[in-house]
Parts: sequence; C-alpha cells; structure tokens
Amino acid sequence: MTDPLPPGATIGILGGGQLGRMLALAAARLGLRTHVFDPSPDGPAAQVSAAATIAAYDDASALEAFARAVDVVTYEFENVPAEALDIVGAHAPIRPGRRALAVSQDRLAEKDFLTGIGLATAPYAAVATADDLPQAAETTGLPAILKTRRFGYDGKGQVRLRTADTAALEALNGAPAILEGFVDFQREISVIAARGLDGTTVAFDPGENVHRDGILHTTTVPAALSRPRVQDAVLIAARILGALDYVGVIGVELFEHSGGLIVNEFAPRVHNSGHWTQNGCTIDQFEQHIRAIAGWPLGDGRRHSNVVMENLIGDAVDRVPEIAASGAALHLYGKAEARPGRKMGHVNRITGPA
Amino acid sequence: MTDPLPPGATIGILGGGQLGRMLALAAARLGLRTHVFDPSPDGPAAQVSAAATIAAYDDASALEAFARAVDVVTYEFENVPAEALDIVGAHAPIRPGRRALAVSQDRLAEKDFLTGIGLATAPYAAVATADDLPQAAETTGLPAILKTRRFGYDGKGQVRLRTADTAALEALNGAPAILEGFVDFQREISVIAARGLDGTTVAFDPGENVHRDGILHTTTVPAALSRPRVQDAVLIAARILGALDYVGVIGVELFEHSGGLIVNEFAPRVHNSGHWTQNGCTIDQFEQHIRAIAGWPLGDGRRHSNVVMENLIGDAVDRVPEIAASGAALHLYGKAEARPGRKMGHVNRITGPA
Repeated sequence: MTDPLPPGATIGILGGGQLGRMLALAAARLGLRTHVFDPSPDGPAAQVSAAATIAAYDDASALEAFARAVDVVTYEFENVPAEALDIVGAHAPIRPGRRALAVSQDRLAEKDFLTGIGLATAPYAAVATADDLPQAAETTGLPAILKTRRFGYDGKGQVRLRTADTAALEALNGAPAILEGFVDFQREISVIAARGLDGTTVAFDPGENVHRDGILHTTTVPAALSRPRVQDAVLIAARILGALDYVGVIGVELFEHSGGLIVNEFAPRVHNSGHWTQNGCTIDQFEQHIRAIAGWPLGDGRRHSNVVMENLIGDAVDRVPEIAASGAALHLYGKAEARPGRKMGHVNRITGPA
Repeated sequence: MTDPLPPGATIGILGGGQLGRMLALAAARLGLRTHVFDPSPDGPAAQVSAAATIAAYDDASALEAFARAVDVVTYEFENVPAEALDIVGAHAPIRPGRRALAVSQDRLAEKDFLTGIGLATAPYAAVATADDLPQAAETTGLPAILKTRRFGYDGKGQVRLRTADTAALEALNGAPAILEGFVDFQREISVIAARGLDGTTVAFDPGENVHRDGILHTTTVPAALSRPRVQDAVLIAARILGALDYVGVIGVELFEHSGGLIVNEFAPRVHNSGHWTQNGCTIDQFEQHIRAIAGWPLGDGRRHSNVVMENLIGDAVDRVPEIAASGAALHLYGKAEARPGRKMGHVNRITGPA
C-alpha cells in the first residue's frame, strides 16, 4: 500500500500535447505540480507546468533526471518506447502500469487480451506475412481492415480490403499486421472509467461518438443506450481495469450492434471522448486520472449536465470567435499552427441538466 | 476599438498568488499564455504560467521588460504601486484601468465615488488627524470602525471604536483614516460582475457571505434574497462598472438591511466570494475576467448548480484528505506552508441543480 501524494508533490508526464496540458491544469487545481517530458519545446503542456524537460525519448540521462525529479510518472500517449519506460520505472512508479501499455501498444496483443478475459471483439486474425492473408480473410470475412499492429492512431496505418489482395500489405511497409472484420454496428460509444490505487473503480456515463475522416468529431452524452446496455458498458470497462490491475483513467471504445456490445479498443490514458466531463461533471476525467495516480480518492463520476463535445480540427479553429460568443465552453490547446487534421481545441456545449 | 487578442497572445499578471494562479488556469483553457510578475519565486501563479518575472515592484527595468513581453496587463491585487503602473502602462494596456485601481486603493475615495454616483454606503467621515475624530464620530455614530484609507485587507488596519478615543489612531500609526458607521444588516452578499471591452455588462448571481475572524469563510449561492433585491444588487454593480468605464471582473460587497442594499466596498479584480462560479457555471469568474481583458465576448453568467464555497485557511488544509473523499470540488493553491490566516485553498460543494 502506498500513501497518497501530498499537495506540492510532482506528477511527471511523458508527452507534452493537449492531453498532458489538461492533466497539468487538473493537477494544478489539486495543488500538485507537474513536470513534462517532451521532445518539442514550448508544447501545450509545458506552457502550464512548473517544470519541463525538453529531450528525446532515447536520451537516457534526461529520462533518469526527469524520473528522479518527480514522485510518480504518467503518460499522455500509449506509444512511449519500452526502453524509456525501463529507465523511468527504475526511479519512479509508472501509472497506469507497464502491462496496460504493452497490451495497448499492440493491436494483436490487445485483441488477445480482450478475448482472453471473455469480452467480445470483432473477428480478427494476425497477418505476419502475405501468406497469412487468405486464411485471415476467411476468419474475418471480407471486406475487412488491415491494420499495423503498432503505432496506429486516428485512422493512420490502416487499409480497407475488399479482396485478399496481398498488395495491401505493401501499403503498410511490411509491418506486422492484424486483419479485423467489419461489425454492422448501430453506434460507437465510449466509456471513460478510472481505477484507484486501492482498486476502487468508477465510470463516467457512456458517450456516443461520431467520427469524420477517421478522427473523432463529436461525443454526445448521454448516449442513446438502454439502461442494461449502459450497465454492460460500464462492467466491460471495469473488467478490463481489474484484469490489468490498472491505476488511472482508461478510455474504452465499444460498438453497439443488434446482439450487444463488442470492444473496439482501449487507450490507457485520458481520452478525447472524455473531454465532455470538463463541463458535465464536478470532477472531470483529467482530475480523476490525477487523483488515481496520486493515490487520492476518486470522484464519483456523477454528471450534472448533458453535453455535446465537438473537436476543433485544423482550420475549424477559425470558428473560435463565433464559438466564444455562443456561451459554450471553449478549450484551446495553445498550438501555434493549425495544420489539417491537427486537434487545436474542442468545445463543450451544455444541452441541459442531466 | 481594439481587436480581441488572438489565441497564443500573452496576458501579463501583476501578482503571483492564488487569484493569479486561477486566472492563469482560465487563460490556458482559452489557449492564451500567461506571464506573471511577482517578487516571490515559485509562487502559486508562476507554477502554472508559461513565463514569470521574479522582481520587486520598484524594479523599473524588470517592469518595462515584462510589459513589453505581454499583450495586456491585469493584476490580482489592488495595491499595485502607482509608479509600477506608470511604467507598465507606457508599454501595454492595463485592464481594469487606472481609475478603478486609484478609487479602490483609498477607502475614502471609494466611498466618495460610490455616493457620488448615487449609491448608498454606511455613514463615513475622513479622519486625517486626531482633531477630526469627534466630528467624524458625530457623522457616523458610535460604535464605529476606524480604518486606514489604504492597504487594508481581510480585517487588517482596522480598529473598533466605542468612544471618540484618539488613542485608537495610534494603533494605525497615524496613517490617514476613515471612520465608518455600523449598519444593522441582515446579511452580506456580493455580486461578481464583468464588463467587456465593448461595454457589455454581465453579472453572476449574488452569493451570501459569512466571515470568520475578519476573513471570508463561506459563500452560498443563491443568496436568500428576494427577486427585486437580486435585481437591485446587479444594477448597483452595473452602475459601478459603467461609471468606471471598467474592463474585467469586479467584486462588489453589499449589505442588506431592512431598508435595502448599501455598498460596503468593491475590489477591482476577481474575488474570493466568486470562487463558487468554478463549479456552478460553465464560464467562471476567472475565465470571464480573461475574456473581458482580452476583448473576447463574455459568458452569460448562467448558473447550472447551487454551490457552497468554503475557504481552507491555515491548518484547515489538514482536512484535505476528508474533503478529497467527499466528492466535492477541491481547489488548492500550491502553497508550501500553512500559516495561520493564510488562504491555502477552497472547496466548492454542489448542493443541487440551479
């Protein structure tokens, strides 16, 4: 058992983007300091943190000094190199732990883990070489999606297959892949849940997600789900958290189809589809994560308002003056340049009391 | 007319305490940077700001460099030396403006201003020397409170008089003073209001304040006021804002007595009695202030929840573990040492939907 971190303790954050920024702001509310590790100077998180280490993820001495300067380490993205974690973990606890990261870094390991704990997923099969493709396509059916096992996000590293055409593998540069079958789903939802250091598990209400061009566009809370489905969704998230002996916030994406819920994937971190909690709950996903990794009691996840969250991507940020005048809650990330596909901010619109 | 500051612009904040900290956190939500000027290193605001200048308020070159590095200057306390403002104001706009500061820095000027625009105050009289006291006591009645005209806060620089005893003046070290009569009031309320660069004025609902040992203890929203009194309170705040051609958030303290409302005092800044807005409103007093001074549209001040705010003063911070477990919204200021009378944080308890 570990004592809760006292106010004034320092949270180390690997990664300095918008998720790190909002974690730092939440930590500040609780009187905790943050120290960001990121290769880019003046990133979104460093602008609001008491300390920043600007160094590469293979800079062993910078990683060690960073880990020695903080009381606990967390991360805002799941592709932290294992070697960096080895160095950091020798000097500070890493929360969520290494297992959650290892599983979520590899789509095949993730699917095997999920089915291994009795959860339903889309049909899938490993594709190590071109020879595996016909057999894999038989398992998943066609069309299907071929994805790299590692380093994919926001629709990157994916190819849609109509036939078992091995040329598709070239688009992935020969990286180890997984073939995933399509599911005829009615909606995508996600559950943002948290598990404390003492094993307490709490979930926010599921949100309903709409994507555009492979990137999350809106999350609407509450999702249009029956009560039993809401309960199923929360229990699925809790089962994942328990099986990983997890500490922190997790984002679990689920599909609802006629037969029930299946798990699409999970992210071992605060999640874009949980941004609505900033204006729908007293204790939001960022504070919940900080509370969990600091060993503090969790908030109860209660929602006081219904919310529609909309991402501001690329030049959608040009709409800021109009949004600022609308009375909605605007959240901008402090990024200087609006590139296509770049998440610049989001807006939470309260649609009524919960 | 001035264009709104774009995201990425820098807000300069004179003063690095908890109000500066919460202003910096609100600015960060809007993608704005903050640069804090404060004599103490590692203060509450500097921990969460992109830049900090640690220098004294009489360090002319530091003040000038600070002002040149920012796009607008605001302050978190009203006793900024006039000479510092002269230097800063030569290089950046100061919002709220100099007049609001000058008036609020001097209790006599403040009372004269308030009565001059037709608002009711407690009876008062200037006390420059001991000779003035008997006449002043006749104006105010006795008992009365003798206060220094300048640099008083949280009950400091005040003496209660039962008789026109000139010895009391010695307790104030001969500083120019004002004698204020007592008002038999039922409650103290405060209105947190804002005025934008375009003159738009918006108020939050009045809160009801309870003090302990001369320091704010709780603010409860809504205050137990009739609807006409709520309207009166808001109109009083709006009159003050208009008369000062004010830009930013103001905190106006009022007494309700049998005959109506009288103004106690105002603070030309975000105010402790407005902290409830962080968990009662989508856009809180801190963001409202940042929006105003940045020339952005104001939020509408709407309240989604009823709240009781309680200050955590001195060793009340020892109750943090219990409060953290209560589900209430905890706000801590990152101060290392809990001294008696020192504001360490506050807690906002949601008591129901608005």
